[in-house]
Amino acid sequence: MQDSKKKKYTIRFEPSGLKIEIPGGTILLEAAHKAGIYLSSICGGDGYCGKCKVIIDEGQYESNPTTLLTPNEIRENIVLACQTKILSDMTVTVPKSHILETSQILMDADAHRFSELAGHSVPLSQKGRKTDSLTWAGTFEFDPLVQKLYLEMTPPTIQDHTADHERLYLSIREKIDAPIMQTGFRILQKLSKLLQSCDYKVTVTTGHRGDTTELMEVETGNHCERNFAVAVDLGTTTIVAHLVDLTKAATIDTEATYNSQINFGEDYIRRIIYAEENDAFDEMQNRLVHDVNNLIKTLATKQKIALQDITTVICAGNTAMVHFLLNLDPTRIRREPYIASAGFVPPIRAAEAGIQVNKRGLLYCLPSVAAYVGSDIVAGVLSTRIYTKKGISLFVDIGTNGEVVLGNKDWMVCASSSAGPAFEGSGVKHGMRAGAGAIEKLNIHKDGSIHFKTISNNPPIGICGSGLLDTLAELFVNGIIDRTGRFKTNGRPELTEGDEGWQFQLVPPDSGHQQIVITQPDIDNLVRSKAGVFAAIRVLMESTQTKPEDLEAIYLAGGFGNFLNVRQAVTIGMLPDVPLEKIRFVGNTSIAGAKTVLLSWEAHKAAEEIAKSMTYFDLMSHTGYMDEFIKASFLPHTDLSLFPSVAAVKH
Amino acid sequence: MQDSKKKKYTIRFEPSGLKIEIPGGTILLEAAHKAGIYLSSICGGDGYCGKCKVIIDEGQYESNPTTLLTPNEIRENIVLACQTKILSDMTVTVPKSHILETSQILMDADAHRFSELAGHSVPLSQKGRKTDSLTWAGTFEFDPLVQKLYLEMTPPTIQDHTADHERLYLSIREKIDAPIMQTGFRILQKLSKLLQSCDYKVTVTTGHRGDTTELMEVETGNHCERNFAVAVDLGTTTIVAHLVDLTKAATIDTEATYNSQINFGEDYIRRIIYAEENDAFDEMQNRLVHDVNNLIKTLATKQKIALQDITTVICAGNTAMVHFLLNLDPTRIRREPYIASAGFVPPIRAAEAGIQVNKRGLLYCLPSVAAYVGSDIVAGVLSTRIYTKKGISLFVDIGTNGEVVLGNKDWMVCASSSAGPAFEGSGVKHGMRAGAGAIEKLNIHKDGSIHFKTISNNPPIGICGSGLLDTLAELFVNGIIDRTGRFKTNGRPELTEGDEGWQFQLVPPDSGHQQIVITQPDIDNLVRSKAGVFAAIRVLMESTQTKPEDLEAIYLAGGFGNFLNVRQAVTIGMLPDVPLEKIRFVGNTSIAGAKTVLLSWEAHKAAEEIAKSMTYFDLMSHTGYMDEFIKASFLPHTDLSLFPSVAAVKH
Repeated sequence: MQDSKKKKYTIRFEPSGLKIEIPGGTILLEAAHKAGIYLSSICGGDGYCGKCKVIIDEGQYESNPTTLLTPNEIRENIVLACQTKILSDMTVTVPKSHILETSQILMDADAHRFSELAGHSVPLSQKGRKTDSLTWAGTFEFDPLVQKLYLEMTPPTIQDHTADHERLYLSIREKIDAPIMQTGFRILQKLSKLLQSCDYKVTVTTGHRGDTTELMEVETGNHCERNFAVAVDLGTTTIVAHLVDLTKAATIDTEATYNSQINFGEDYIRRIIYAEENDAFDEMQNRLVHDVNNLIKTLATKQKIALQDITTVICAGNTAMVHFLLNLDPTRIRREPYIASAGFVPPIRAAEAGIQVNKRGLLYCLPSVAAYVGSDIVAGVLSTRIYTKKGISLFVDIGTNGEVVLGNKDWMVCASSSAGPAFEGSGVKHGMRAGAGAIEKLNIHKDGSIHFKTISNNPPIGICGSGLLDTLAELFVNGIIDRTGRFKTNGRPELTEGDEGWQFQLVPPDSGHQQIVITQPDIDNLVRSKAGVFAAIRVLMESTQTKPEDLEAIYLAGGFGNFLNVRQAVTIGMLPDVPLEKIRFVGNTSIAGAKTVLLSWEAHKAAEEIAKSMTYFDLMSHTGYMDEFIKASFLPHTDLSLFPSVAAVKH
Repeated sequence: MQDSKKKKYTIRFEPSGLKIEIPGGTILLEAAHKAGIYLSSICGGDGYCGKCKVIIDEGQYESNPTTLLTPNEIRENIVLACQTKILSDMTVTVPKSHILETSQILMDADAHRFSELAGHSVPLSQKGRKTDSLTWAGTFEFDPLVQKLYLEMTPPTIQDHTADHERLYLSIREKIDAPIMQTGFRILQKLSKLLQSCDYKVTVTTGHRGDTTELMEVETGNHCERNFAVAVDLGTTTIVAHLVDLTKAATIDTEATYNSQINFGEDYIRRIIYAEENDAFDEMQNRLVHDVNNLIKTLATKQKIALQDITTVICAGNTAMVHFLLNLDPTRIRREPYIASAGFVPPIRAAEAGIQVNKRGLLYCLPSVAAYVGSDIVAGVLSTRIYTKKGISLFVDIGTNGEVVLGNKDWMVCASSSAGPAFEGSGVKHGMRAGAGAIEKLNIHKDGSIHFKTISNNPPIGICGSGLLDTLAELFVNGIIDRTGRFKTNGRPELTEGDEGWQFQLVPPDSGHQQIVITQPDIDNLVRSKAGVFAAIRVLMESTQTKPEDLEAIYLAGGFGNFLNVRQAVTIGMLPDVPLEKIRFVGNTSIAGAKTVLLSWEAHKAAEEIAKSMTYFDLMSHTGYMDEFIKASFLPHTDLSLFPSVAAVKH
């Protein structure tokens, strides 16, 4: 035993063929991660979620006993990777649906999808030009957080003896409004020689830092055309990055990857606990920074852009992710009094956080509202512009958590339901993120036949968010499950008994594809998720005496997939029953809002105002929330009068 | 020869007894400097000023031939230290008048003098309290550049879930006006744990950086009472430092030292040339920083203050000195178009410039007007408050250069005469800085007898500024020199022929003291200096059509000595002939202004306004200046009608 721990072994993962050499005794989940394979792991490697199942094709190992494996699975050499120690060279097969793929093909598809969701690029090359789109969020003045200016100054003479530094300021102020300016010491030291060397023709890079304009860089000649930024949506599960040309206000390319903290738990609370117990805050930061750097590097390489020409990185995300990124203390996010270290984070040099762009480039993090309502939600409010409207809007963002904002130009309230990431595919047997082969649209016809569409039309390997919404709604509408979400064991041939009780077969094993089922626990999880969201909506509406008919618009945000059927969200009772034309799926508003801010200092200020003005409801300490949750744990709800359109269809 | 260069030799300097071990071939001037002896060296070691004469008592050396030594001097083994190579162990005597002493005794005396000149400490412990004195310069609100605040915050609860960072800001804003705040990343990272560890009772250090308030430090507990600053007057020859208690607005102690760049030339133009020719900008900075650090360390040690409790350093000085301190490029100060790299220098962390105080402490440099009108003059204008007055004032600062400001609350003009540092004792055979043994007051009675007073009543070893002013005036008034400054060889026994032509004996060799004379070249130098200053005054007055009777006040600043007789400045024609009660000797206004700014952000803004609003006259390119200079090269002037009071006395 002792010997085998010291030795190095080669582990080969199928079907990817990825190999890794690792010391004996290493946990298989860790080996998989080091090989670049991100396995699902909701519990953070504690061995009780059962998501990291793999098949040992060959090799010696030692696995802790678990009740999460059926006798059949044990016979087939299936183990929990997090509970298995490596004792020899091994070959391991990872079920496709369990992999969080990062291969280029899936990334592209995924990124492409996000890019479609997040709106189009906005051509904007002149100062002050105004446009109107979701991404650009209306009428903000074009004034990027970091910009480059080409200046042709008149060199000094005996008659015109203004010092170089002041001469530069005067010249900048002819071009932009910068009443308060600041220059770094190193720039000041090199300034005179540099100005002389190029006859006072320079490109200056200026950045907004609070109300101060920082003179970030001075270079000889004209480099104005090379000014890029990356907007990042720091999701608990997925990280999305958009490359933006700041001179044209255009999105050039997009990339997405899985958050590699995922091995430490699928939700951020579990990751905070893990970090506390293992003193792994640095590790948490490193992983996130590594992910962001990888995205940036990939974008830059693809688009042939030098990292030094990327002057700005802007991040939106939940409060915990922003804390992890900056290595701020996140421990009281999960513990009374449930607060953040900082809701408003001043811009810092990206290099200070380890982000590899221009060495003087700035990193902005949008402000958050509270520990459980992060800057992704502020970005969403900015994107949807509900803070400017007279009528009342409801904004719902379904991600690993479900956040809800209600309000208008005069007031806004918000809350977060920690109902879990079921609609992101977690806690669902064949659930998966939106990616090639994911069922994103599903229909059960009157004749009982099941029809579905997969992303990229690949062979089905799992179900993503919009597919799960469809599945739940269709099972309900077709009477396969009852209002409590229980299967009606009424003889449907697709209904069989599996390891986890009753399960409904969406793709049968004899179809030539992998079998895909939805189990009773899956349905329970999905209902819990939707109930959490709807209960949060109800608490906010009740508290503000808002009736469904008062709602002028509902914005549903999240990474569901492009073919989300908003009707189904009403059918299952996740969203209030309003006329469908009032409901709009808005995709990834986190990145859309971040890009808006990136392009306009005015939008940055608006984001700060939004974060300040929202009133946060802590649902855990709210007396009415649990009641609402229980009432919402039915399909669509205990109180059918809240869902007249659903009641009318159901019989 | 080759061998002797490699060997190390011990050089002993008398009368100090200081020793240094140095490789053979080293230049004696350099050895002296390394031993801690600052010899006068106007020419920067080029061998033509003849100020670094020393006597070789013992040892082998090699000296370049020079015409600056008389046959007598050569016989007495007198050499120019800058032209002499060390070839063996040596004993060297340095004439007392040639040493720029840095010994503790002289430093104390000197510092004490400066402290007297610069006004008294101002007790000011309450926010917003206003006082009126020269140092405090009137009615600025007490608002130090860096302050410490003790905050007892209410810890967060579930109901009061404001994030730690915002909670801190709110608490700070209850105490001070800080609309724009900024926090360093490292502070943000440690903030939460720190606040929790002390139940939200902290001392914050805040600093004004432009219009932004920087949160410089957060510490547990109450440390408000330990907040100190050092104000520095960066003179070309002398550096003066005042230690200020920022909580009481009181000056605690003062120190002064000689600028150790002095070996590279007595005026800053020569030092810039030296730095350019020898790529010695780093060395120039190091010396200045070293001097400032020494002063700070001495003050801190004497007053038992930890360096980390010194949070602020503020400097005023001529433009070149500020450039040297920060290692900004000073080369075009001496070369067309005669401009500075930066007139306005943003506050930086003192550590960035190598200044050793609190590691996050800030270094402020007051703004300058032009290459030849530095922040010391801005400080002087602030101190004398001429920028607030309805009547026209004239401000004259005689240091290594002579700067002149004319104006009132509506307009101000300024100029610099590069007439040389004769009144600082340079270029004068027995001239010296104000220090123990310097003749600071001199009188020639009607009976021909000569009376003088020395600083500290020590035996006379030379003549300082006020003594030189008296000497020149008394020689003129008593008819010993004529209106062109030539000795009248009319049989006065004190008039003898020396190595440099005629000389007048102030202290005879048979007096028991060292012989002290004033030579014809000395007088020529003094007359040139005063002519330069008066010509500058005339140019400014003519250009603004200001008549002598329009002048409401003349402020004379500089390190002359405490017993300056302003009447004599009129007698020799350095200052306009106005009623004597209008002339006020104001001492070191550079440090007085710096201290005012230190204690009030409002004063900082005023200094910036002053620097911006002054119009600079470049005398070198001014057509009338040379004419005025020639006319002023008489005692008191070619045009006696300009000096009616002098004309009335002379017969």
